[in-house]
Amino acid sequence: MFVGIDLGGTNIKLGCFDPQLKLIGKTAAATGADMGPGAVVDRIGETTEKLLADNSLSAGAIEAVGIGAPGPLNIAEGVIIASPNLPLFKDVPLRKMLGERLGAPVILDNDANAACWGEFVLGAGKGVRDMVFFTLGTGIGGGIISDGKLMHGWCDNAAELGHIIICPDGRLCNCGQKGCVEAYASANSTAEIAVEAIEAGAQSSLKKVLDERGTISCKDVYEHLAAGDELARQITDETARALAIVCVNVLHTVEPKRIVFAGGMIAAGEVLLNRIKDYFNEQIWSLKKEAVEICFATLGEDAGIIGAAALAKQNKKGDGCE
Amino acid sequence: MFVGIDLGGTNIKLGCFDPQLKLIGKTAAATGADMGPGAVVDRIGETTEKLLADNSLSAGAIEAVGIGAPGPLNIAEGVIIASPNLPLFKDVPLRKMLGERLGAPVILDNDANAACWGEFVLGAGKGVRDMVFFTLGTGIGGGIISDGKLMHGWCDNAAELGHIIICPDGRLCNCGQKGCVEAYASANSTAEIAVEAIEAGAQSSLKKVLDERGTISCKDVYEHLAAGDELARQITDETARALAIVCVNVLHTVEPKRIVFAGGMIAAGEVLLNRIKDYFNEQIWSLKKEAVEICFATLGEDAGIIGAAALAKQNKKGDGCE
Repeated sequence: MFVGIDLGGTNIKLGCFDPQLKLIGKTAAATGADMGPGAVVDRIGETTEKLLADNSLSAGAIEAVGIGAPGPLNIAEGVIIASPNLPLFKDVPLRKMLGERLGAPVILDNDANAACWGEFVLGAGKGVRDMVFFTLGTGIGGGIISDGKLMHGWCDNAAELGHIIICPDGRLCNCGQKGCVEAYASANSTAEIAVEAIEAGAQSSLKKVLDERGTISCKDVYEHLAAGDELARQITDETARALAIVCVNVLHTVEPKRIVFAGGMIAAGEVLLNRIKDYFNEQIWSLKKEAVEICFATLGEDAGIIGAAALAKQNKKGDGCE
Repeated sequence: MFVGIDLGGTNIKLGCFDPQLKLIGKTAAATGADMGPGAVVDRIGETTEKLLADNSLSAGAIEAVGIGAPGPLNIAEGVIIASPNLPLFKDVPLRKMLGERLGAPVILDNDANAACWGEFVLGAGKGVRDMVFFTLGTGIGGGIISDGKLMHGWCDNAAELGHIIICPDGRLCNCGQKGCVEAYASANSTAEIAVEAIEAGAQSSLKKVLDERGTISCKDVYEHLAAGDELARQITDETARALAIVCVNVLHTVEPKRIVFAGGMIAAGEVLLNRIKDYFNEQIWSLKKEAVEICFATLGEDAGIIGAAALAKQNKKGDGCE
């Protein structure tokens, strides 16, 4: 039995899986990141034990544990170097701590990589060996599978795809760069761009939301898009265009067979996906026809725990993908 | 003994190497691409035999042959699918043809990949396992080494790095896309940008060149840069800035330890390299310090034949990099 853990700044998600990676049971708990690494590891331990007990399993049944965590990480050493979402975690040997707590081998990887691996093994990436994965959430994260393997880069920071610059001297990103795709196409940017447009005088049904609540969310933008608002349509177009450019760029870099978008924003649905594909076809070269498939993820919020468990299984077996 | 071949639209370069990849002898011949694939393969065969004879070697001494060719290719099948520079080559089974002609196993790879592999094994990439390689010539080609292996992508067209879009709706590239880095920072683009600027009224010592010859070359631009021309300085700055953005983008995608620039344009020297580094440091995020090394290639025009021979040796041994 394998345990997959998705460690976030707010919540810990946890699942136990049979050897075929079928979900036996899952649960979640508040991270309690302000209690520090030791307490968080204890909480993961307790939550795991409770999940196992609820499913009539003993801790001894754990073959291996996979955990996805925000980074930067040192994956070879199993260490969280630092994390904006886990401010008390500095050079924390999470793999060792968790291994001792649970009495099982642990593999640590980046949270976006874990979700990417989950989609690759059991979700939208099934059947391909080369895949690029984007999570469209508060920010934009990424993962790259090349020839059936997760790409880590020389210092475990490959696939920071949200920080590909698509517009020199463009919008300022939280990372300090200008013109990152994250500054145009994340949930936060979508909301910010809407607020800026309305404050600059754009006509939109979103103005009422801003007036009443003092803020606009990405969800609002997509709700007003569905209701036919023109500003919401323009913003969605800009998002799709930014994502299409980054699709062109990853195609010409790692040449995936499939590009998979995940995260809260894909709730926008086909209207977003189709615009991404349209703009991709408009922007891509004419030298040859590109058969890359652009699609949405299929595992939803479970991708992280599934991927972490799959990494644990793969690590245990020492082999590549299925 | 290994043979390395660099097949270009105009010339074939050819070298024979001892098992430690030390150059025994090299030569070149006109490709004669207009004679068609059969005649080109014959010419490669004759040129190889002459090179071997000149070095008192027999064809039987060839352990394996590597050949870098312009693509797109099907590497697994050893086929040139098509090539703008070899117009008569359509679905040519070059690996098989050359293997029969030379009586030795042949490995075929993309020309930029071969040069990349040469620099990786014996040149500017020595000592790292993750490297990105750019050739700045007429166009911009590329190669990516990830964890000690050449990245090919799902259809053998990874690392088309010249066609990363750095400026949406920017300059039209020959590939049909707008805003490719190749449209800003190749030798051809450098020359074109200079001509456009002068025709638009820019003051420059290059105007005399244009008036007298009716054209400007990239070499002219760098000569006038060395002589202190302001327009040449601005163009070099734009080139460096475009290359710096693409460095940021490949860093956030595959995270190389080293980025290597090769090709005719690096003759511009430190003035270009230093501007690339300056702009990279100006554009890169502030989340963490990046230790990626940006440098020039060291093998010059021999990178292609060295890399092809090194691929032949690696293929023969079935192992990874040194």
